[in-house]
Amino acid sequence: MTYAPPIRDMQFTLEKVIGADRLARTELFADATADTTEAILLEAGKLAANILAPVNRNGDLTPAVLENGVVRVSPGFGDAYKAIAEGGWVGMNADPEFGGMGLPMTLTTAVGEMMNSACLSLALNPLMTQGQIEALEHHASDAIKALYLPKLISGEWTGTMNLTEPQAGSDVGALRSKAEPQGDGSYKVSGQKIFISWGDHDVAENICHLVLARLPDGVAGTKGISLFLVPKFLPDENGNPGVANTLKPISLEHKLGLHGSPTAIMEFDGATGWLIGAEHAGMAAMFTMMNNARLGVGTQGLGIAESAYQQALAFATDRVQGRTMVADTNTILDHADVRRMLMQMKALIGVSRAICLDTAFSLDMARATSGDEAAKWKARGAFLTPIAKAFGTDTGSEVADLGIQVHGGMGFVEETGAAQYARDVRVTRIYEGTNGIQAMDLVGRKLMDGGIAAEALLGEIEATAKAAQAAHPALADALQDAGETLAATLDWLLGAEVNDRFAGSVPFLRAFALVLGGHYLLRGAMADESRLALAQFHILQLMPQATAHCAAVVQGAAPLYALDAEALAS
Amino acid sequence: MTYAPPIRDMQFTLEKVIGADRLARTELFADATADTTEAILLEAGKLAANILAPVNRNGDLTPAVLENGVVRVSPGFGDAYKAIAEGGWVGMNADPEFGGMGLPMTLTTAVGEMMNSACLSLALNPLMTQGQIEALEHHASDAIKALYLPKLISGEWTGTMNLTEPQAGSDVGALRSKAEPQGDGSYKVSGQKIFISWGDHDVAENICHLVLARLPDGVAGTKGISLFLVPKFLPDENGNPGVANTLKPISLEHKLGLHGSPTAIMEFDGATGWLIGAEHAGMAAMFTMMNNARLGVGTQGLGIAESAYQQALAFATDRVQGRTMVADTNTILDHADVRRMLMQMKALIGVSRAICLDTAFSLDMARATSGDEAAKWKARGAFLTPIAKAFGTDTGSEVADLGIQVHGGMGFVEETGAAQYARDVRVTRIYEGTNGIQAMDLVGRKLMDGGIAAEALLGEIEATAKAAQAAHPALADALQDAGETLAATLDWLLGAEVNDRFAGSVPFLRAFALVLGGHYLLRGAMADESRLALAQFHILQLMPQATAHCAAVVQGAAPLYALDAEALAS
Repeated sequence: MTYAPPIRDMQFTLEKVIGADRLARTELFADATADTTEAILLEAGKLAANILAPVNRNGDLTPAVLENGVVRVSPGFGDAYKAIAEGGWVGMNADPEFGGMGLPMTLTTAVGEMMNSACLSLALNPLMTQGQIEALEHHASDAIKALYLPKLISGEWTGTMNLTEPQAGSDVGALRSKAEPQGDGSYKVSGQKIFISWGDHDVAENICHLVLARLPDGVAGTKGISLFLVPKFLPDENGNPGVANTLKPISLEHKLGLHGSPTAIMEFDGATGWLIGAEHAGMAAMFTMMNNARLGVGTQGLGIAESAYQQALAFATDRVQGRTMVADTNTILDHADVRRMLMQMKALIGVSRAICLDTAFSLDMARATSGDEAAKWKARGAFLTPIAKAFGTDTGSEVADLGIQVHGGMGFVEETGAAQYARDVRVTRIYEGTNGIQAMDLVGRKLMDGGIAAEALLGEIEATAKAAQAAHPALADALQDAGETLAATLDWLLGAEVNDRFAGSVPFLRAFALVLGGHYLLRGAMADESRLALAQFHILQLMPQATAHCAAVVQGAAPLYALDAEALAS
Repeated sequence: MTYAPPIRDMQFTLEKVIGADRLARTELFADATADTTEAILLEAGKLAANILAPVNRNGDLTPAVLENGVVRVSPGFGDAYKAIAEGGWVGMNADPEFGGMGLPMTLTTAVGEMMNSACLSLALNPLMTQGQIEALEHHASDAIKALYLPKLISGEWTGTMNLTEPQAGSDVGALRSKAEPQGDGSYKVSGQKIFISWGDHDVAENICHLVLARLPDGVAGTKGISLFLVPKFLPDENGNPGVANTLKPISLEHKLGLHGSPTAIMEFDGATGWLIGAEHAGMAAMFTMMNNARLGVGTQGLGIAESAYQQALAFATDRVQGRTMVADTNTILDHADVRRMLMQMKALIGVSRAICLDTAFSLDMARATSGDEAAKWKARGAFLTPIAKAFGTDTGSEVADLGIQVHGGMGFVEETGAAQYARDVRVTRIYEGTNGIQAMDLVGRKLMDGGIAAEALLGEIEATAKAAQAAHPALADALQDAGETLAATLDWLLGAEVNDRFAGSVPFLRAFALVLGGHYLLRGAMADESRLALAQFHILQLMPQATAHCAAVVQGAAPLYALDAEALAS
């Protein structure tokens, strides 16, 4: 299908909803002017629409295959990847010292959304590399940086994350992979890792694996884990791919979706690697990588939602079927419930886009400012990150599912591509920490400040309600009320035992996102009257669910454990 | 996976929640005693668990194929189908005069759930035949009945429904298939039909197609459509399959799921057929078939939900991962949010099962009683039918989706089968009238009585709230309040323009189902204290969403049309 990059909406969200023009007023991001932003968005939009979108179906229909120990990717993926790399997009937010563009994450999040919309399975590749670049920038030695970063940033080499093992999924601390120091600064890494996205492929000349493993003196659990960089080909004296390392893909997963992305089981058999960061501090280094990857995954959900919406809208506009109660066309667009589905899709996308961009903006501002201000922005970004990941990906699934429904019977046959969106996006609610784990992070670590970051956001919501009171009293009142319910629920959580918090974590996250959504869309409506209808729909028709979710939160853990395994089974 | 038929829960729901023991006190269903019910459920449960469930994966992995004009089904499907037919299950609610068992639909709905849980793609085959049997029982001539019904009821022949054409999906009236009278009582039927479930196969010796087509003097739209019975092989003088008719499958759809069910494009090229019912009255006859098929499809959703739940519970009980806050096991079952997902799945299943069985029970009672009483039962069943279809299938999707989430990364790889449930069940929200169309039926035709049937159900809900007041005041109050909100929303609908009704139809249906769910589960809890926890979870944690849905209902149509196609696209 034809993908139309939603650049105008991105610009509006950045300028009028988030206030991202503040970035260009910092020293660090002085170049990120409105003009530069537009130029970059337009260029990325062209790449997405013209190069990536056309290969998306290939990934689904002709999945990557493992043959004779080598992975061959889907038709057209090699060239499309080269276009990403040669455009400099892999290193778009990397350090210019090593060849990166040094763009703010706010902008790269917008670019990422478009790449994800166009071809999620391929866009996952640079996302993994970007995470690795960031981990190396923060934790690698100067020698490693000098050798690897230019290759990764240029996209000549790609990066992977190797955390999961069969018995160690969300519980990374249970991993069994081992690393033996060789006395020359290198290590021999051994173990089996599963679910390795782009673990092997033929689109770049080398693949750098970041592998979590335990040193001989590493204690059990997460505190005994170290991080190693293990390349597929060991760099020779000129820094080019040399001798093959002792690692290989054993098999590829047969997945529900994302068939264009080879998901490998990797075997490391005494493979040569180098320590990244301190011994036994692998988890911290890995979290650097995962933290921003979480925003990236939220943006994957958003990207698929946008594509699925565009496709459904185009179908509804063309599809003649049945008498409608309005207008003189008989396209299904004029059926009230089809309209409801489209409005719901559009509202959820608007909310997700604002959340993802605002998260990125907060993290950028944390880097661009200092002292207390930086700390506040950092806490804001940290609080928003699990919301961006979970709500963005939930939106991806919900919108893609509605997209199928708009298509009716044509949504269930694979040729339309509507089902592919739903299949592809499904994993985003699982990887980089399931959405349940995101919610636990939100009510656990992210409330360890006593609720300061959360309350600051509630204050922003309240300010929007106040500002809108005169022009849009009904919407302002609804937002005010929802904010107050959320505040009361937050207070309940802050006073609750940890497992009571966890019990309410998923509904709390969703409630928070829905109310934040009211705030963002109402800000948009105040800036541009033509956006009022969407804000109204969200605030009066979707946001009321937040109150229902809050009612669930305050029930605590006990009701969830009232049935034992036997009772659950009977 | 192992499927354990939930017979105890079915029996409890029938006896204590629905009061289905009243059936055996009617003359028509005097045989449907608790003992007979149990014997039949046990027998059907064995078939489902031992014969059908083992072939379910085959259907997904080795889809039916069309080769040389003939469809070959998935491995094991032929034998499994024979077991269904030989057990008499195809004709379980058919007229004993033609070899049927004459069981009440209440019981066959329970049996259907188990077959759907075990292998939805195969169970769809007898469901289609059952609909055809019903249409013929009501509308066919005695000669047609005598010739076809025994073969269909025994399962020797199977039945299909041929409504949809490329330009005529939900809008059946737009169909172009034609029928020419031949002067000998037969007709030549020509046209192309799409999405024909089990349109061709090799599990039975003949296939009887019910085809909607227009006679030469048929007016445009639905009022000019007639129904024809068009067999694959024309019966010879002994009633055995004789000469091949001029019809054939042209191709099979490549679908998101339900791969074991061959979905054909059928071409009728002057094929010989016979009129069923009066000329131009095809829609009425087809609706007989579709009406009960809707309950059957709701039960498909329920069946998949039950299987997906059983699988997720088994996975959660076994999967060791991460430290939990409770207990001394470390299975993911003890994580609060996994518990939340399982409770949500179980509650939705409990509600759906009660709705489906109560719908069937109402329809049975309408047949078993007479006069005003029968009319009341009929209206009750008619009102509940779209709710059973839409809520049952929504539950199928929601529970299967949660099932994937409980599995984490293993849910996204196909080998576990968790994804198959989500893929297979997706079409149930689309076929037999999309769930949006079910909701339009609910607020349209089903409120044409001025709300009498709806208000009678609200009265039942209120009675439950009153009865529970002493023992469970908090739950009773919540149910009472929700019922009142629903009643006010109903009043709003009754006073609204038709497109305002349609605009709120989907949230209204869902709200009604959630509140009905509170009523059913609370009735269960009053009968058996061990069921209190589930009722509590539903009423306090899921049912509050009904209020949010009602808030959306009363917004009417205007907000949904506030953005035109261009604004939706920008």
